[in-house]
Parts: sequence; structure tokens; C-alpha cells
Amino acid sequence: MLPIAQTPEPPYYAVVFTSHPGADQDGYAETAHRMVALASRQPGFLGIEAAGSDPQIVVSYWRDAEAIRAWKAHAEHQLAQRLGRERWYGAFRVRVCKVER
Amino acid sequence: MLPIAQTPEPPYYAVVFTSHPGADQDGYAETAHRMVALASRQPGFLGIEAAGSDPQIVVSYWRDAEAIRAWKAHAEHQLAQRLGRERWYGAFRVRVCKVER
Repeated sequence: MLPIAQTPEPPYYAVVFTSHPGADQDGYAETAHRMVALASRQPGFLGIEAAGSDPQIVVSYWRDAEAIRAWKAHAEHQLAQRLGRERWYGAFRVRVCKVER
Repeated sequence: MLPIAQTPEPPYYAVVFTSHPGADQDGYAETAHRMVALASRQPGFLGIEAAGSDPQIVVSYWRDAEAIRAWKAHAEHQLAQRLGRERWYGAFRVRVCKVER
């Protein structure tokens, strides 16, 4: 699990990802670690927090909406998103938010 | 733990509360349950999600910034916030966000 993120003064963006696990967790942990490592190297990445497993809440922080779009479109992340939808998550919700204060 | 919140179409607000526990957890669980029950009856409350314990992430959803201000100022919640700062949380961060999509 990740500690509290040391983000800058607002405004910036947050992506709140809440999920319940699916039946098949094969390969999930490795991919999750890899995605955190990859996201951390993306332009505009500010930090990430994660807690729990059912539900799991992951909040990633970004400089702006463009940084979020670029990460969403990242090829390896796209593959992980597909596996997440098809296998690892039973239900999930993604909310893109502007942090105001 | 609470399931994924069924929130309406954006825009609405989210309060992301990330914390590490302090040494003294006496009375925390009861107060946390009470706060969820109280918050659920506040005007403009839309839902709440919680995951983990160290860190713990709690995300509450609200119709607008005014609903968040009213809940923050609620007398019993103010007392709980004080006990949280003084006892239950070792470190925490609260972010107020506008959910855009």
C-alpha cells in the first residue's frame, strides 16, 4: 500500500478509481505494481494513494486533464485496462476530479 | 467497508480523505459508523466509499460545495474531527474536488 501523497497546492487533478475484485486475480498484483511504476514516470504525475482490496480505492494525482488523457492512452496501460475490465475487477467506477482545495 | 457509491451524472463534489492511523484507536470505530449515518442524512449527501486502514481512504460525494461546508460545520462532526486530529489519525490529508466526469 502507498502512503499519503505529498501533492502541491491546488488546483490539480485527481482520478478516483473504486473497484470490487473479480474472481480471477491471476497476474493482477504484478501488473498493478508495473502500472504504478509506469504512471510515476508520466509527465504531470503528482502522486498516487491506494487502500483496501474490497473495495479497493486508488487515487492518482495529475497536473492537468491532458496528463490524465496521455496516461489513459498509454499502450501498456491500455492493455492493463482491458485485462482489468475483463478479469480483475468485478465492478469499478472511475471519477475524474479537479482538486480545488 | 462500503461498496461503490451510485452517484449521479457529474458535476458534483468529492471529498477525498486519506489517513494513517494514530496510536490510540479507542472509540474510533463507533464514531466512524456514527459519522457515516449522520452524513447520510445531510442535505446534498450523494454517497460514501471507504477502503483500507493504513492508509485508509474515505471518499464522500456531495451535490455542491455548500453541502460540504454544512457537513464540516455540523456540531457532532466537529467534535469527531477534533478527536480525529488529536487521537485517531497519525497523519491525514483532505482534498475537496469537483467531479467533472
